[in-house]
Amino acid sequence: MVLEAMISTTIVGASGYGGGELARILDSHPEFDVVQVLSNTFAGKPFAAAFNGMYGTSTGDLICAPTSDEPAGDLIFLAQESGYAMKVATEYLAAGKRIIDLSADFRLTSPDIYRTYYKSEPAPTSLMEHAVYGMPELFRSKVKDARLIANPGCYVTASTLAIKPLLDADLLIGCGIIIDAKSGISGAGRSRNDAIYKYSEANESLRVYGVGGVHRHTPEIEQNLGVRVLFTPHLVPMTRGILATCYLPAMDGVTLHAAYESLAAAYANEPFVTVRPVGEYPSTKDVAGTNRVHIGLGFAQASSTLIAVAAIDNLIKGAAGQAIQNANIMYGLPETLGLAHGGIWP
Amino acid sequence: MVLEAMISTTIVGASGYGGGELARILDSHPEFDVVQVLSNTFAGKPFAAAFNGMYGTSTGDLICAPTSDEPAGDLIFLAQESGYAMKVATEYLAAGKRIIDLSADFRLTSPDIYRTYYKSEPAPTSLMEHAVYGMPELFRSKVKDARLIANPGCYVTASTLAIKPLLDADLLIGCGIIIDAKSGISGAGRSRNDAIYKYSEANESLRVYGVGGVHRHTPEIEQNLGVRVLFTPHLVPMTRGILATCYLPAMDGVTLHAAYESLAAAYANEPFVTVRPVGEYPSTKDVAGTNRVHIGLGFAQASSTLIAVAAIDNLIKGAAGQAIQNANIMYGLPETLGLAHGGIWP
Amino acid sequence: MVLEAMISTTIVGASGYGGGELARILDSHPEFDVVQVLSNTFAGKPFAAAFNGMYGTSTGDLICAPTSDEPAGDLIFLAQESGYAMKVATEYLAAGKRIIDLSADFRLTSPDIYRTYYKSEPAPTSLMEHAVYGMPELFRSKVKDARLIANPGCYVTASTLAIKPLLDADLLIGCGIIIDAKSGISGAGRSRNDAIYKYSEANESLRVYGVGGVHRHTPEIEQNLGVRVLFTPHLVPMTRGILATCYLPAMDGVTLHAAYESLAAAYANEPFVTVRPVGEYPSTKDVAGTNRVHIGLGFAQASSTLIAVAAIDNLIKGAAGQAIQNANIMYGLPETLGLAHGGIWP
Amino acid sequence: MVLEAMISTTIVGASGYGGGELARILDSHPEFDVVQVLSNTFAGKPFAAAFNGMYGTSTGDLICAPTSDEPAGDLIFLAQESGYAMKVATEYLAAGKRIIDLSADFRLTSPDIYRTYYKSEPAPTSLMEHAVYGMPELFRSKVKDARLIANPGCYVTASTLAIKPLLDADLLIGCGIIIDAKSGISGAGRSRNDAIYKYSEANESLRVYGVGGVHRHTPEIEQNLGVRVLFTPHLVPMTRGILATCYLPAMDGVTLHAAYESLAAAYANEPFVTVRPVGEYPSTKDVAGTNRVHIGLGFAQASSTLIAVAAIDNLIKGAAGQAIQNANIMYGLPETLGLAHGGIWP
Repeated sequence: MVLEAMISTTIVGASGYGGGELARILDSHPEFDVVQVLSNTFAGKPFAAAFNGMYGTSTGDLICAPTSDEPAGDLIFLAQESGYAMKVATEYLAAGKRIIDLSADFRLTSPDIYRTYYKSEPAPTSLMEHAVYGMPELFRSKVKDARLIANPGCYVTASTLAIKPLLDADLLIGCGIIIDAKSGISGAGRSRNDAIYKYSEANESLRVYGVGGVHRHTPEIEQNLGVRVLFTPHLVPMTRGILATCYLPAMDGVTLHAAYESLAAAYANEPFVTVRPVGEYPSTKDVAGTNRVHIGLGFAQASSTLIAVAAIDNLIKGAAGQAIQNANIMYGLPETLGLAHGGIWP
Repeated sequence: MVLEAMISTTIVGASGYGGGELARILDSHPEFDVVQVLSNTFAGKPFAAAFNGMYGTSTGDLICAPTSDEPAGDLIFLAQESGYAMKVATEYLAAGKRIIDLSADFRLTSPDIYRTYYKSEPAPTSLMEHAVYGMPELFRSKVKDARLIANPGCYVTASTLAIKPLLDADLLIGCGIIIDAKSGISGAGRSRNDAIYKYSEANESLRVYGVGGVHRHTPEIEQNLGVRVLFTPHLVPMTRGILATCYLPAMDGVTLHAAYESLAAAYANEPFVTVRPVGEYPSTKDVAGTNRVHIGLGFAQASSTLIAVAAIDNLIKGAAGQAIQNANIMYGLPETLGLAHGGIWP
Repeated sequence: MVLEAMISTTIVGASGYGGGELARILDSHPEFDVVQVLSNTFAGKPFAAAFNGMYGTSTGDLICAPTSDEPAGDLIFLAQESGYAMKVATEYLAAGKRIIDLSADFRLTSPDIYRTYYKSEPAPTSLMEHAVYGMPELFRSKVKDARLIANPGCYVTASTLAIKPLLDADLLIGCGIIIDAKSGISGAGRSRNDAIYKYSEANESLRVYGVGGVHRHTPEIEQNLGVRVLFTPHLVPMTRGILATCYLPAMDGVTLHAAYESLAAAYANEPFVTVRPVGEYPSTKDVAGTNRVHIGLGFAQASSTLIAVAAIDNLIKGAAGQAIQNANIMYGLPETLGLAHGGIWP
Repeated sequence: MVLEAMISTTIVGASGYGGGELARILDSHPEFDVVQVLSNTFAGKPFAAAFNGMYGTSTGDLICAPTSDEPAGDLIFLAQESGYAMKVATEYLAAGKRIIDLSADFRLTSPDIYRTYYKSEPAPTSLMEHAVYGMPELFRSKVKDARLIANPGCYVTASTLAIKPLLDADLLIGCGIIIDAKSGISGAGRSRNDAIYKYSEANESLRVYGVGGVHRHTPEIEQNLGVRVLFTPHLVPMTRGILATCYLPAMDGVTLHAAYESLAAAYANEPFVTVRPVGEYPSTKDVAGTNRVHIGLGFAQASSTLIAVAAIDNLIKGAAGQAIQNANIMYGLPETLGLAHGGIWP
């Protein structure tokens, strides 16, 4: 259904988990109209063949085209592997389109750090100077004027939002920060065939990976916070959800009460952030199916360490939902449009 | 947010799984306004305390009141245990309200069968003569004029929709029908404390129950179909979803092609029913989070048996979603209003 | 640890789920000594690299060799894809070895049926005339003298054991039998990469497959029972376990009591079969980690249909455990040796 | 089956998850003979009614008696709630019996710390002076002569074994230790009815609890290590397994290589501890069904922090298995007797 007033959008990489979530949410969005879904895997087939839950929707009826097709939408969501967006963005921008990229191509401002963590060449400076890091809670005003958005990483979103206001309020020493993060298995994406993602091997199992601060989300979190962190991700036998348990050495004299008030105040007007009441901590199910972040805050007196725990749905606030939140801001729409629904539970 | 034009609604039993799902979907519905949530368990607390996923929504901010409170809405959803609705319905109807009851109180037209399966007295005839069985695909025109809706059972919805058009088209012998149904564990409801619903005991386990045709949904399916069925439910280690595998002895000469065409034609204009292409069968994940029914049809040549497989989300098309679909019809709204979104996947 | 008296065994295909389970159970077996594990995938690596749970065991320390290696054991377990065993069995038998094959190569006595269901040439008659179908409860005496065992299929084991004694006791009409079977995902094996076996897609989902009686286990069940069945398998979001719900039209006058007594009597002396008390039905968790079969029996009066429900661990009684049970019998050992432990629960 | 030479044992609290696991393992143990299973919940019923997986075993046939019954065994396993063992131990010891207690009654040497964390009176000094803390890897020689064993906590076992050798080798600063631990849901025990342990609410969810160092296992870990730790447990949607991710600030100049060599050497002769090769980390599935501990070691250069990750099966090495390991030592049996089998996988 194309109304004149609607903003036409193309999803590139629509058959991945992130791309599919974009399609699902945008299909119900009152202002964005998905006019094109690009997927090499499902080219020639209706989008509902890629995401069976989309049978009976207008986006589900669209026929997928290969990613080599010219993008038809004014707004382009890129949900491809790292390295893709930096190849096509210049041309698309020149054609007057706006881009929201869900990969890591435009996230890191330091070319050297990009090279170190991604083992390949970073995006050219000519593109990077246009890119805005799309975490609205931190950079809302920049997002408003952006034509190229680097949509943040999933772990990064949970970790940054849990820690940033406490750092900014000078409540943390700023060193010794440890983030022990846990993710559902959809975080690995749809195209991975590793044995550890097979049901029989992942089920009833919990594993750690990226031990030693080597995970690619480490520098992105550090860029957001401006301090060093030790970040360790885990794989949890569930499909969706991230829980980041953040250990934050506090300044002398910091109390839980003061830290809590500060955190709550920082997010008082944020539409998608809930600071849970003192003594209450989020579980991933609390945010499943939503674009929300829930944060709980505790304190270990003995070691003067604040413990901030953040939960998100990795595919929504950690990917497609945040992308649409950015799109709403870019187009001057209400920020929660199409994203305001409550969480599916249980 | 109460607009003048919106229809005020009360949810009674809002903290159960069905009641919570009503609240979640209605919170985003453009025409129904949840003005009151009644729950004895959470009385005095915000609704988001009962359903943490509702933090940040207007319904989540409502303070729960005890079920003894006068219902404030014009439309009342009753999501209580069997036996409750039949006690309050007369009074509510007299007050000019409309009722959609998610329990079994008004589903069975035969008082004797009700007594046999529910071991208690049925609703009085004075109420039963007002009650309309709210399965829109079968009784849409009656729903339109109803003031008291008996919302169908979850297993019943999947089974009836899979079988009914094939029966009506005289493709089935009409005897020997076996329905082997499988449900996620949320079907047991929120208040059950049996050990079999505990995570450690339900996980990695599959069990049968209600063996021998004794489950309460048996007579409801038989009432819808007009024939005898052997219905056996199973409990599957997943939260949501029902898959009903229906074995249907076919008339002589019936072919898969003819049966498929007949089924597809029957549902050609149904907004919530998808007959999957020949050779394709639904899995429960295909309909998770939606009000949709997916049906696949196969044929066992050797025994001349059609096999219809239906999948639904037990809490949506099997409960809250179908209830809202009925409400849309009762109020002359587009039937898919608030229910048109695609399924959450993976 | 090689004692002189122990029987040396080779496992071919040791890194598959069935092969690994053989290794795990045999590692604790007092009479069989695993001297060789063949696996192309893990050739050159210790077996514990393939099955991490085997670290610290003597079998775990064995270095895997390619399947092209000469088998060193007197007893050879073949846990390879269909088609492999029929190529090597003649040579191994000639060398005086005994073989237990976990594939389908020697299960079906009819070459035509084999061709139809496996789309390839059956084993030569010269091999088939040596093969004994290794379901001890049915063919114990033949197993005793066998040198080549066809180990039964997983679904077949559950289904056959649930139905056979009732048929033999003339309690069933013998037609109209429907088997609705459900399996955990390990049944697909370790080497399959289909998307439906990925955690994110299999989890919280239930699907049917092989609709219409086309699954390869259909003819094997029919061969065991001597009657036609309609067999439909399902994939359940759990790792292990099979539950077979068998609908069995009964002879006139059959009562649950009589059928139960008959079934219980048939299995009174079977070490691995438990007929659960009347009114009790097994769940798959009841047999997890064991070589046992649990059977529950119910009756649907209205349609005069017995409902037998059997649960097994698909990798043990449905594969490796039954293979070792056969080995015990072949070598004149106590049948339960190494297999007598209770089930792991929860 | 009671052989003259076997050691008679009683399990008190046999129907709990820990008690049942004791029964299952002891049923196959060549030297301990379970002669009595005490359970108030299942008194008068066969033990297999409590643990369905025990049908067909001799322990499964034992009739449960109430816990008020006189214990018949020479060796008594107490698997009751905290506070029970301290009431009965004096009498049992006086009767010449040996006791292995799986509760926390005799674990903490400081009465004040016990009072703080357990909100009740500690065991009398007269009992505490007999109690030996039963972690064989640390206190093997004391266990040998003990008559009263305090079996360690589950989280404590994983955490202590991951950290202790590194501390003892002076590789750690000894402060700033953070243990982020994750447990399957069986850790909550069988008798808990909290909603968070229900399948529909626990599944697909991950939650933190005991935030701020308040969990009861904190002082037990600190007692073992002799240093302060910040311990935070999480609940993971799986039945069994604990993964403890331990962040360990290292002394200046410590290298991963040196630390690894030290850890590997410390456990070189431990039958149940596997230090995984450098770069490899355990997942909980690797130890499922075993009495083993798997430890992986990494290093975060940037913050000079060792990261030790330990995995155990919480009901075996974290409870029943370690108890039987202690029993083997107490009776001069080979330490791995009845416990040597590999892990069940997948």
